[in-house]
Amino acid sequence: MGKIITLTTDFGLCDAYVAEMKGVILGIDPEAKIVDVCHTVRPQNIAQAGFVISTAYRYFPERTIHVVVVDPGVGSSRRAVLLHTPYADFLAPDNGVLSYVIQEALSQPVKGSTVKLKPGISAVSLTNSKYWLPEVSSTFHGRDIFAPVAAHLSLGKKPDTFGAKINVLTTVPLLYPRHTAAGLTGNVVHIDNFGNLITNIRPADLPDSPIGMSFIVGSKKIHGLSHTYAEGNGLLALIGSHGYIEISLKNGDASGFLGVGVGDQVKITA
Amino acid sequence: MGKIITLTTDFGLCDAYVAEMKGVILGIDPEAKIVDVCHTVRPQNIAQAGFVISTAYRYFPERTIHVVVVDPGVGSSRRAVLLHTPYADFLAPDNGVLSYVIQEALSQPVKGSTVKLKPGISAVSLTNSKYWLPEVSSTFHGRDIFAPVAAHLSLGKKPDTFGAKINVLTTVPLLYPRHTAAGLTGNVVHIDNFGNLITNIRPADLPDSPIGMSFIVGSKKIHGLSHTYAEGNGLLALIGSHGYIEISLKNGDASGFLGVGVGDQVKITA
Amino acid sequence: MGKIITLTTDFGLCDAYVAEMKGVILGIDPEAKIVDVCHTVRPQNIAQAGFVISTAYRYFPERTIHVVVVDPGVGSSRRAVLLHTPYADFLAPDNGVLSYVIQEALSQPVKGSTVKLKPGISAVSLTNSKYWLPEVSSTFHGRDIFAPVAAHLSLGKKPDTFGAKINVLTTVPLLYPRHTAAGLTGNVVHIDNFGNLITNIRPADLPDSPIGMSFIVGSKKIHGLSHTYAEGNGLLALIGSHGYIEISLKNGDASGFLGVGVGDQVKITA
Repeated sequence: MGKIITLTTDFGLCDAYVAEMKGVILGIDPEAKIVDVCHTVRPQNIAQAGFVISTAYRYFPERTIHVVVVDPGVGSSRRAVLLHTPYADFLAPDNGVLSYVIQEALSQPVKGSTVKLKPGISAVSLTNSKYWLPEVSSTFHGRDIFAPVAAHLSLGKKPDTFGAKINVLTTVPLLYPRHTAAGLTGNVVHIDNFGNLITNIRPADLPDSPIGMSFIVGSKKIHGLSHTYAEGNGLLALIGSHGYIEISLKNGDASGFLGVGVGDQVKITA
Repeated sequence: MGKIITLTTDFGLCDAYVAEMKGVILGIDPEAKIVDVCHTVRPQNIAQAGFVISTAYRYFPERTIHVVVVDPGVGSSRRAVLLHTPYADFLAPDNGVLSYVIQEALSQPVKGSTVKLKPGISAVSLTNSKYWLPEVSSTFHGRDIFAPVAAHLSLGKKPDTFGAKINVLTTVPLLYPRHTAAGLTGNVVHIDNFGNLITNIRPADLPDSPIGMSFIVGSKKIHGLSHTYAEGNGLLALIGSHGYIEISLKNGDASGFLGVGVGDQVKITA
Repeated sequence: MGKIITLTTDFGLCDAYVAEMKGVILGIDPEAKIVDVCHTVRPQNIAQAGFVISTAYRYFPERTIHVVVVDPGVGSSRRAVLLHTPYADFLAPDNGVLSYVIQEALSQPVKGSTVKLKPGISAVSLTNSKYWLPEVSSTFHGRDIFAPVAAHLSLGKKPDTFGAKINVLTTVPLLYPRHTAAGLTGNVVHIDNFGNLITNIRPADLPDSPIGMSFIVGSKKIHGLSHTYAEGNGLLALIGSHGYIEISLKNGDASGFLGVGVGDQVKITA
């Protein structure tokens, strides 16, 4: 039975780009099970793609292959890499799109522009052209390099077949909650389809006693933590399905209502 | 060979929600064939999701499993249910999203806020946590309850494995055409991707003689019934592919042109 | 192992139309591997669908079945056809949507409203109702004719099972670059998800010496040909992944920035 290969890109749904990747994969591994994670990442938005795949991959079986192609530097000197963690394999340009995944694999904050891997987590630079399409464009490595490599990996080839081991990967510095005299300040890191604001604040970051806890976001203040989207009548703060504090508007779009977007602050006072 | 599991949600295409459901399903039943029906249901729009799945399911093989997650009450006291009909299985929150399916399965109008099932049609409340993910969020039962239950059902588990039988399901009252002195009045129940207005009027509801029949919608009057979208030069009324009367604009968007939306009236005079 | 069937339509993502086609296909050939190419073709935009499938199909394995349903004339006298080329099979309405594919299969320009096939390329008119759904609507042949025929073809039925051979197919005249005293003039034939302008100009059409070559598009002039999207700081001209000259804006949307759309001219001066 074929392995699962997931695809996350900013290629959108109105072109043949994604289909070409699938055609290439199935031409090499006809048994591969391809699952789309998301193709409507905002063009060149590395942070959005990185967050989405980092929340998705844990729900796939072990050793699933995740291909993430948000690649404004395609054809330039940026490397194409395979990141091998104890749970899964990731194929992506080495441009920081795997920063959230690396944070989780290494269990450490990602605050710089590169990170050194640890034992158990390995990476290779995809330089072995034997596993690429015979003709490689300088504008679409998703189809010409990542797709065929994913399919050969799916067929059982070892990671170091595809190139030389590397120890340092490119990252983009991630935002983390800061404790200040006034309380805790985090940031919105993702806005979902419903307009829910997903923050980088974990329940463990919250004050020990939830009594009197308030969330300040945009010009609004939310009192207390709710358990479900169905509670109350307006803005809510709750623990979302990926384990982060989320700001939601009952039956509405919190982002639109508050005029708050990715990067904006959420403050918590006890 | 794996069974087919279809997914209909309002999760959109820019998050990992749908992919997480697929990862969970394939982790339990690697042979499952997952088919997306629609993930761009307008947020929390139970009526739209219910109409879409009710028109789609008849074209899938018998015993296909249809998962429908439009779930504004997730985590509240609303039940999660499995509806078992002679033709297919449906997994959904018990919030009325299956009203159109229930109407068809029971061959009776759905006019109240609950409905009693008949012999041959059964339902269970999904309370057996043995078939859920080990950790269940209060915000995403699509992934944590519906997906794993769908996969276990696909593997051959019997419906009553998942919880106790129930006899009454929640419905939302559906709209039906009314005969008045002036003729027949129906409603737009769906607007498709082309802007076609799909009504709740069946050909059998029309006057016996089509001679002189007119359709009044918005401020316009359409004379006679066409056979194809290609006829005439402007607004058309015809029998759409799901067996309902449809209002269409040749090579255009009838909904936009007429300013008519879901719920608006269509009147027929003989 | 099942064959691949790809789907390209203007049915959008908010209805059950695409899912119904998949249900019908899997009901006939449960082993078929269905791959979506694109369902967000602009309604009734034959040119867009034709370009997309013509660029995609070469990346799928040989004998993949490509179903293309952009079909404003559905139910009228337009034929439904199967085009059989040495590499693949195409099912589509005979309305010109296969013009780009035909151009490539015949290795000749498509400049008229019909084209005569050559030995090695054959077509049949899908008239054998034995392979349709039992009940055929006049508004949705994608589901009622193309999907079941695709599935039977996938199971190994020969093309002439589905109807009589035909020698002439309907085409839409395609645009080709013209050489003038001032240089070469081509046209934008597609705009991708990033806003890149894909032209009908091939590298072989360019002047022998690239020295001093400029691209005039909208009110702007671009000097020289770049190799990657990452070069320079603004507008770029490069050879795109499908082998056509493309105009791109670094980290931006060239189409929006230039106010240039499909059909608009791109001029090249040496």
